[in-house]
This record gives sequence, structure tokens and C-alpha cells, in this order.
Amino acid sequence: MSYILVTGGAGYVGSHVVLELSAKYNVVVVDSLVNSSYDAVSHVEFLAKKKIPFFKVDLNDADALSEVFDQYQISSVIHLAGLKEDSPLDLYENNVSGTISLLKVMTSHNVKTIVFSSSAAVYGDATTPISEESLVAPTTADGKTKAVVEDILHDLYLNDPQWKAAALRVFNPVGADPSGLIGEDPLGVPNHVLPILAQVYIGTRDKLSIFGNDYSTHDGTPIRDYVHVTDVAKGYLAALAYLHKADHGLYREWNLGSGKGTTVLDIYHLFSKVAGKDLPYEVVPRRSGDHVTSLIANTERATKELGWTAQLSIEQAIKDLLNWTTKNPSGYHVDNYFSNGDYEANRIHTVKYPGFQASVANYGGTVVDIQVNGIPVLCNYKDLQDYKLPTNPFFGATVGRVSERLPEGHFQINGKQFVADVNEGPNTLHGGPKGFNRQYFFGPIATHGAENTSLKFAYLDKDGNNGFPGDLLTIITYTISSNALEIEYEASLTPDSKEDVTVVSLTNHSYFHLTPDKNINDTRLLLATNRYMDCDAAKLTTGTLNNWTDPDVSKPFTLGDHVLDYCFVVDEHPTGIDTRSLPLKKILQATHPRTSTKFNVFTTEPSFEFFTGDGIETKGYGSRPGFSVSPFRYTGAAYFEKWSNQVTLRKGEVYGSRIVYAFDF
Amino acid sequence: MSYILVTGGAGYVGSHVVLELSAKYNVVVVDSLVNSSYDAVSHVEFLAKKKIPFFKVDLNDADALSEVFDQYQISSVIHLAGLKEDSPLDLYENNVSGTISLLKVMTSHNVKTIVFSSSAAVYGDATTPISEESLVAPTTADGKTKAVVEDILHDLYLNDPQWKAAALRVFNPVGADPSGLIGEDPLGVPNHVLPILAQVYIGTRDKLSIFGNDYSTHDGTPIRDYVHVTDVAKGYLAALAYLHKADHGLYREWNLGSGKGTTVLDIYHLFSKVAGKDLPYEVVPRRSGDHVTSLIANTERATKELGWTAQLSIEQAIKDLLNWTTKNPSGYHVDNYFSNGDYEANRIHTVKYPGFQASVANYGGTVVDIQVNGIPVLCNYKDLQDYKLPTNPFFGATVGRVSERLPEGHFQINGKQFVADVNEGPNTLHGGPKGFNRQYFFGPIATHGAENTSLKFAYLDKDGNNGFPGDLLTIITYTISSNALEIEYEASLTPDSKEDVTVVSLTNHSYFHLTPDKNINDTRLLLATNRYMDCDAAKLTTGTLNNWTDPDVSKPFTLGDHVLDYCFVVDEHPTGIDTRSLPLKKILQATHPRTSTKFNVFTTEPSFEFFTGDGIETKGYGSRPGFSVSPFRYTGAAYFEKWSNQVTLRKGEVYGSRIVYAFDF
Repeated sequence: MSYILVTGGAGYVGSHVVLELSAKYNVVVVDSLVNSSYDAVSHVEFLAKKKIPFFKVDLNDADALSEVFDQYQISSVIHLAGLKEDSPLDLYENNVSGTISLLKVMTSHNVKTIVFSSSAAVYGDATTPISEESLVAPTTADGKTKAVVEDILHDLYLNDPQWKAAALRVFNPVGADPSGLIGEDPLGVPNHVLPILAQVYIGTRDKLSIFGNDYSTHDGTPIRDYVHVTDVAKGYLAALAYLHKADHGLYREWNLGSGKGTTVLDIYHLFSKVAGKDLPYEVVPRRSGDHVTSLIANTERATKELGWTAQLSIEQAIKDLLNWTTKNPSGYHVDNYFSNGDYEANRIHTVKYPGFQASVANYGGTVVDIQVNGIPVLCNYKDLQDYKLPTNPFFGATVGRVSERLPEGHFQINGKQFVADVNEGPNTLHGGPKGFNRQYFFGPIATHGAENTSLKFAYLDKDGNNGFPGDLLTIITYTISSNALEIEYEASLTPDSKEDVTVVSLTNHSYFHLTPDKNINDTRLLLATNRYMDCDAAKLTTGTLNNWTDPDVSKPFTLGDHVLDYCFVVDEHPTGIDTRSLPLKKILQATHPRTSTKFNVFTTEPSFEFFTGDGIETKGYGSRPGFSVSPFRYTGAAYFEKWSNQVTLRKGEVYGSRIVYAFDF
Repeated sequence: MSYILVTGGAGYVGSHVVLELSAKYNVVVVDSLVNSSYDAVSHVEFLAKKKIPFFKVDLNDADALSEVFDQYQISSVIHLAGLKEDSPLDLYENNVSGTISLLKVMTSHNVKTIVFSSSAAVYGDATTPISEESLVAPTTADGKTKAVVEDILHDLYLNDPQWKAAALRVFNPVGADPSGLIGEDPLGVPNHVLPILAQVYIGTRDKLSIFGNDYSTHDGTPIRDYVHVTDVAKGYLAALAYLHKADHGLYREWNLGSGKGTTVLDIYHLFSKVAGKDLPYEVVPRRSGDHVTSLIANTERATKELGWTAQLSIEQAIKDLLNWTTKNPSGYHVDNYFSNGDYEANRIHTVKYPGFQASVANYGGTVVDIQVNGIPVLCNYKDLQDYKLPTNPFFGATVGRVSERLPEGHFQINGKQFVADVNEGPNTLHGGPKGFNRQYFFGPIATHGAENTSLKFAYLDKDGNNGFPGDLLTIITYTISSNALEIEYEASLTPDSKEDVTVVSLTNHSYFHLTPDKNINDTRLLLATNRYMDCDAAKLTTGTLNNWTDPDVSKPFTLGDHVLDYCFVVDEHPTGIDTRSLPLKKILQATHPRTSTKFNVFTTEPSFEFFTGDGIETKGYGSRPGFSVSPFRYTGAAYFEKWSNQVTLRKGEVYGSRIVYAFDF
């Protein structure tokens, strides 16, 4: 399997390039994260529903870079890493030394195809429209470093004609992906007119300053060539395809611009029109170095040779920018949302409110921690790696594609029999040996509301995984508020799934304990019902409902040594594959004489498993360390035809459910 | 104490710059030695008689470079490190990335004065004479990297006006220091006319190829500006002085050229004239890229601002080049001469002939190893650091300024009493606590003859060291032939020594054993005499001569448990401070029943100490592991007025002596 390596893939243009690439290629990203956020990559993964290996590497660290080339079979490099604004020395170190280091590593791994992200800045004060034949005469340190790298690539090709090198002279990229999930992180670009206008729009900035209105243009403000970042990203793919297609080495420059000039005031008016209101601005004197009236690309070469032309309008760019900025007013950087670890295998996201916090990991979408007044109320492991222990009783995990047990793996869809992979003796438990709990999820996408913060993950369960049919895309949203964690499941077969129907029953398998006691005895409980599903010695459902009376759990009772591991049914006539619009039912309340914390569980689901944790024996825990309460479709719904409508999902339909773990304290 | 750091100080121009600098400044050299030899630095030390700390550092290794800046107080940098001919990527990595790394380290150590070694190559095909105002338009990768670095330095100054940066655009440096000890290593520069002519002259090359004689010049060959490397080196000092004198930051370029143009054929004819014979040459077509007719510097700016003008003629350069090439036909690189270790504290030089080899260290000029047919015959330590052990009985060491014991340190010169520092109880032994044996020597200068190889070391014993008067410069030459090590001592008070007279008695203190036995018993010996100097219980000479009779050492005898540690006298009427022209006398012969190796010692000296090694107790050795035989002036000659003419050295006189350790095998 061969990969395209993208340097600076977490940056503004870089993340859009990675997104476009992901549809056609396998992509590895390296980025120093000096001026960017890994979240850009995780957001692209979420959008592309595709794993994008990431390495936090400074290009000047040739050893670390070499390891990436050793680990992945890299066919070509798209090189966007670099700084734009810094001291000259830092610019040269990052942009020039960094590139030389990259090219050395490429050479030593016999990788000789590169698309380099140059800049219109190499032209300095050229007369517009600027063709690639125009004199290279940069006036800024940034532009100089780009010109030096172009020279190096050219010399490299002249010296070794196997090299295929493209230099893309990008004009002014603007806008964002229409998803609003990736865009220009405003912390990184304090001086560009559009991000500034967007900040004025959302109120994080007072006004736009226009530096000089004494240029010889129709409104006195200078003309630039603005081009939608998605168009720019497509230009990178076009250049890469050109290099791949060439049957000989080459070095070639291409302009990536719209070919149209727009003044700063034109941009201002367009923005006001799209935003629906006039924003404050002022005209101030030019800054030192401001003297170029007009910079417009002549884009003939790219059109002719790459078949590339900018398609999207500035209005579209402004719409997309507003979408991105509104959804991410602080860009990727938000104070109360943390990620740590190695960006791939060990990401934990913690959202904190006063007295309440919850943490979710990408691995299994696992709820790894909930703390109430600083007291942990969840069974968990300190180290994410421990969640892979064979003795892990699904602590905090997402359970799927089908919760609970299938006898010898058997399930049916529309009367047709299927067999899932088994993982508990002869039977299948909680989705099988490679269930959702053992998968890395894409994302999260963090959304910060006034009263809560949500973390949205995606997981694509491929056709045949654990024996289940169809490509199932699941989106799980964890919403943390000041006293509750709400989990929302949404799943559907992808449009290009080969199978048109499947089975789904998802839940979360957190174990709770209201006190730090060794076990949960003395917890005072009340369930919404005592109707439960009978099961045999192997814990396989018999398909019949009974009333549990010892004790009657539908009345408040104090937990002694009672052993409970049953599916309790709150809705005996469930309908619909998507329960999310149904009212939330309180299905459990728990208190404990040694704490004032009250715990309530709500759901839209027709039933729930209640388990007192008997027999658990894993790192840090013995039997009955917590109780789990996991709302879902009837246990055995995928096995018994009479209940199958609860779990049968057809293409075009959407499976949905909600669970709320709420704490009063 | 502040230092000038010179990068690339082991290179051709670099070594000449370091030599000129050493007269006025303390200098630290860093060099990667990728394309140069540490010997250049050790030769400069030898010439300058001054310690030049050296570090083998690639400028891209910022950590290693930082350590040098941490260790030495660097005030300014002269930056010559860089490659001229290599793949573009390696050129950029070394010249551009390396400089960026250097500038980062300088910045972090607040060192902001730099003289950069640029090149006339930045001008590309400019019209001559070329002033600094001419367009920078390099056509070679080398020239491009120089231009990029100039740009970086300029930007650096514009960004932080504390920087003082000079770029010296050097034209064609030629020639060598008149000493013939440093010059252009011909391995590094295969394409320059003068080194090639010198190689043709000494016969390591067939002929000179002249590339094209169709240029529009008086003889059809292109014109270049050749400038003596010593002049160039002085230009660096002038630029450094200019920067030091400036009361504000600056960035400025200066041409360093002669201002005169000379064709290739002109050079050829000049060379033939100086060499006294016509050398073979041929005219061949131009190489690709050869198209510049004339490159001559306009040197007005350097003359006016730096007060610098080239002084030396091309004829002088040719003479100096011939001197260098004749003395060093293979440059610094010679197969049978090795140096290893850390370049400062741990240099060992081994010269090998079939069946015989000898090794000498810079530390103490110590003979650390002699091997006969692969069998070591010297007492020594594996690790040079062990020579610093307090128990070291002067294994292989150079002994000075005065060999043997001075009672309570007393000695006299012209009837005037002096006291040396004591180091053996109340007495001074072998020159005192900081004797020659504990000093690092400069050099060596290796000279490779048809039948031998010599290693020449220098040591400057400063006035007052160990209590001895006058600055004494000692040159020691170790000449290794196919079966012998000859040691020649030469010492004189330096012209600027404050004292006009001193005492000197030098020797070598090697311990020999002809077999690997634990001790030397059974060795069969014969000394040239049994006349010895009597001494008291403290081994202090009484000043009277006797005959040693038990056994009579002037007759062959087999060593039993005899304890001998006496000064034997072969010349009872010695005259002259320089014995080198006297005939070599055989003073000892040794054989052993368990080896066929015969050992003979010769000297020009009037006496010698013979010691059977009793009481030695040091790392790896117990008592009597070897015998020492150390020719020198009478023991006590510096103490007894009657013998003082042997050791009294006046300014203008030269002390000298010779010792030969010869082996038949």
C-alpha cells in the first residue's frame, strides 16, 4: 500500500489538501504543530471516514522524518510545511533548512516526486497579470525562502533528471471546506482581511483596519487575487497527477489563483452582502512594506497543463468562512477541551464544568472517566492500553454492532440466517471479537455551546467485520453539560454499501459506583420496571418476559448480595429504528448512604441491561466494583424474528437512540 | 578571555585565516573535516606556537555547536565552513542549512558579529571589473548558496540592527603560507589551474588541460583574478577589525581580489618561469558551463573602507605553492601516518614500516609504543589519560626542562642561584610538577622521506614554568625508519624572551623490554662505560665519578637482580650546548635469550641514565618491567658550577642533541 506524504498537513491549506487527497490516495501527515492543531487532521479523518496516520515531526529532525519513510511506503510528497511570519532566521530555518532536510530524506528513500507549496510572494512587485515567466524577485523574507526552495528543486532536477518537482505559486487562499469542520485557524493569521472580517462578524474583533486607500485602483485599496482554498487544494491534486503522468523528470512552476483581482473594499462589500450587515471598518495608513497595488495571477499555464481552473466564487468562500468561523469561533483551540497522548492510539478528551467532568477516548469511543465533585464514579483503567486487556469487562465502552449475546453467533435479517464471529465460548458477545469497543473512532468534532460541550465521533464498521453485513457508519455524540453526560447514537448504511440491510443495537457499557467503596453493596436503587427477560445458564435469552421480585426492583431497594444481569423492558411494544425523538424515560435512580450524589439514567430505548458486576476480575478491580446500566434494543432482538424490527436497519434509514447519565450533587 | 570562532578553519583559506588571526586573537576552530584535515590546524598551532582549541562539528549539529559557544566566550565568528563542489542538495544542506544553524546558535548566545566567506561566484557572468554594486546573479549551485546566505545576513541585520555582518566576495585564492606547512589540499580541488600545475610539476599528474582557447582575450584563454591566500586571510582580519570598530550594526559586502586579470596561459607561463621548466599542457574544448571570459574584482571598496589591498604577486604565490606541494606531495593525507582520538587531548601518531612501528603522542611528546615484529618492546599505558597517573614513572616521556634531580630544586646560572618547583619530596625531579612530560605539544609536522618519516613537535615552555627562567621553544623531531626511532632535540630562547639565559637538559624516558616477560631479568646487556656518578640515599649526585664493578657493565653481563639507577659518563670532557654534530656513540646494547631482537642505543650526549625500573608500581606493571636508557647532560650539571657549561643556554644559541633507539630483527 503506497502513501502520499503531506508535510504541514495540519495547516490551513494543508488540511484541505489532505481532505481532497483522502478520496483518492492513502495519506500520511507530518506536521510540527508549531502553528497548527492536530484537530485539523482528526477533523479530516472524521470527514473522510479514513485513517490518516499522523506524526508530529519537525522537518529538521531528519531521524524522525526518516522513521516515517521507513514505516510507510511513500510514493510522493506534497510539501506545505513552513512558516509565513516569524524572524528571518526562523523562517529560513523552517522553510529552507526544513526543505533541505526533507529532500535529503526523500533522496535516501528514493522518493523523487514532490509538489512544493510556493507562493505568489516569489514575484515581489511584479506587474499583473503575473505569469510563471515573470521575474522572481521576492521582497519579503517569506517570499525569499520560497524562491530559494524553488531554486533548490530546480537544481535538484538538473542534477538528477529522475526528479519530478512542481512548485505551486499560490495567490491568496480564502474560505473553508463547506463542512465548517476545517478552516483557517484565526490565531495563525492576524493580518488577512477575510478572517479579520469573520472575527468582526462574530464579535471577537472590533473592526477591520484597511491599510491605505491611496492606491491607484477604483476605490483606492489594493487588488489581490483571492482563490477558494478548496480550489487551491484541487490544484495540488492536479499537479500531483501531472507529475505522476509524466514519463520523465521535470521541474515546473504553476500559478494557483483565480485570475481575478478584487480590492480590499470590494471584499468588504461582498462580505457585508453575504453576512447581511455592514461591519465597522476604518482606513489607516499603509504599513511599512505595503506598496504593491495589484497582484493577479495569469492562470493560463495551470489551465492548459493541469486542466485546473478555480471554480468557486469569493461569495462562496465568504459563506464557507462564515460557516467555519461561526462553528469554531476560537478555531481549533478551546480552553476546556483537552487532548493528550500520541495523537493516534492514546487520545483522551476531557470536558470540565464546575463539579462535573467527563472524559472520552477515541479508542472504542470509551467513556474513561466521570468525576462528580472530584470523585470518580466510573470503573476505569489509568492507561488506555489496559482497555485492550482480555479481562476488560467492556468498561465504559461503546458496544456494537449488536449488544449482548447471540447464541452461537446466530442472527437473522428478514428471515435469512447469518452467523457472527464468536468470542464468548460458542456465542457472540457485544458485537464479537472486533467489536466497536476495540476500534479507533474518527474525530472528535468538539462543539462548544453556552451550556454544554459535545464531542462527535465517527466509526465506519466495514461490511463483514465480525460477520455483520453492510458498511455501517456510526456517529456518536457525547454531550457534557454541568451535571450530565448524554450519548446519542446515529447509524446508517453508507450510500455505497454493497448490502442494503443489516442489524444494529448500540449502547454504552459504563460501570458506576457512587462511592469509592470496594463494591457497590449498600447502593440504594430503583428501576423503572421489574419486567425482565428470562435467560438460561449461558445467559442466553429464552425470549420470554417475567417479573423480577427478589427484590421487586421497581420499588426502591438497597443492594445486598443480589446478583442481577438481566435485560429489563420498559416498552413492550417498541416501534421504529430511531428512538431519538421519543421522550426520555427515567429508567434507574441510584443513591448511596455515604454520598449526597444522586444518579439518574434516562433513555429513549425500550429496554436496558442492568448488571451488578459479578465475577469481574481485572486490573485494579474485583467482583461487583460497579453496576452497569446499558439502554438498547431487546436482548436477542437480532435472534428472534418477533423482535427483529427493533434492530433491522435498511439503507436510507437512520438508526438512533439517546442515553443520559445525570448526576445531582 | 574571549575568542574568535572560525568555522571551516581546517580548510584552505580557513587555515590561513586562523594563522593570521592567531597573532592577535584567541581562536577556536570548528570544522566538520568532511573535506579537510585536522592536520591543517595542528600545523597552524605549530607555526603560531599557540593552542587553538578545535572541535569536529558539523554546523547542522546545533547541540554540538552550542556546546562550543557554552565552553568558550566567543566574541565574533569568521564563517568559512561550506562545500564548493557536491550535489546541489549537499551544497544547500552544508552551506545554507549549516549557516542558518550557526546563526541560530550565535543568536541564542548573543554573538552578533560575523564575517562570512562569500565568493565572486555570486556575480555569475557579470561584466568586469566587478564592483560590489554589480547584480547578484549566481549561475552555479555554489554561488547560489553563497547568495542565499548573504540575503539571510542582510535580512538578519534589517530585522535586528545589532548585527554586524560582513560578506567577503573572494575571487581566486592561490598560493600558500611561505612556511610550506599549510596550503591547498590537492584532493579537495581537482579543477584549479595552479594546484594542477603543481601536481604536474611533482609528477603526480601528467599534464595541464586548458579548457578552451577561443575566448576573446589576448591568448584566447579566460581571465580570472588570482589573489594570494595570505592576502585573502589578511582581508578577513581587516573586515573583522572594521566590524569591531563600527559603533552600530551593519551589513556590508567587500570584494577580495587583486584587481588584476590573468589568463590561464599567462598563469601557465608564469609557473614555467618560476619552476624553471616548461610543463606539458593541452588545449581541450570548454566544459559545459564554461562561458565567462573575464572576472576581475573592482577592489576600491575594500581599499577605501578596510584599508586592504592585495600585496603579494602571482609569482610569490607560485613559489609558495611549489614549496607547499614539494613538501606535501599528497597534501595532509598520507597513508602510513595515522592520527586518532579527540584531536586535542588524545592524539597518537603511528608510523609503520614492515616489522617495525613507533607511536608518539602530543601529550608530553611521549613515545607510547614501539613494536618489533608485532611485539611491543615499550612499557606503556593503553589509555593516554593514564599517563597522568601520579604513579607514572615517566613512561616514554619527554623529560625537561632539566632531567634528573635538583637538590631542593636548587640550580645556578652564571653563579646566580635559582629554585625550581619541587615534586619529589624536597627535591625537583625531571623538570618539576609541570614538566615537559605533562604538556601538550604542538604539531606534529609529518615529513615523509624515501626511507623514513619524521614527526616534528613544538613546545613553548613559558618563563617561570616550574621555576625555570626564559621562554624556551623546544622542537623535537621523531624520525622513524625501517628499524629505528631517532629523537632530535632542538631548543632555544625565543627572541622575545625576557630572560637571556636559562638551563636545559632534555631526554626521553622510554622503558624497554625485549620480551613480554614480567621483568627484565635475564636480559643480556653491555654499556659503553662503567664510569658512573655517585649519589646519596636520596639519589642526589655527589659530584664524583666512580667505576661500577658489580658487575662491570662495560663488559657483557646478564641481568640478575642487579639494581642500577645511575648516570653513566661516556665523555668526561664535554663541550658545546649543541651535541648534534658530534658522532653518534653506541652507549648500550641489549639482547635476550628468548628473542632474536637486538637493541642498540646511540647518542651524541656525554652521559646517560641507566635504570632497571626498580620500585615501579603502576597500572599494569610491577617492579623492573623495563629498563630505561636516557642520554643527556650530566646529572647535576645545573647544580654544580663545574659542569654548568653543559646546560647553560643563552639567547641566540641553540641547544641540541640526538638519541637513536635501533633494533636489529
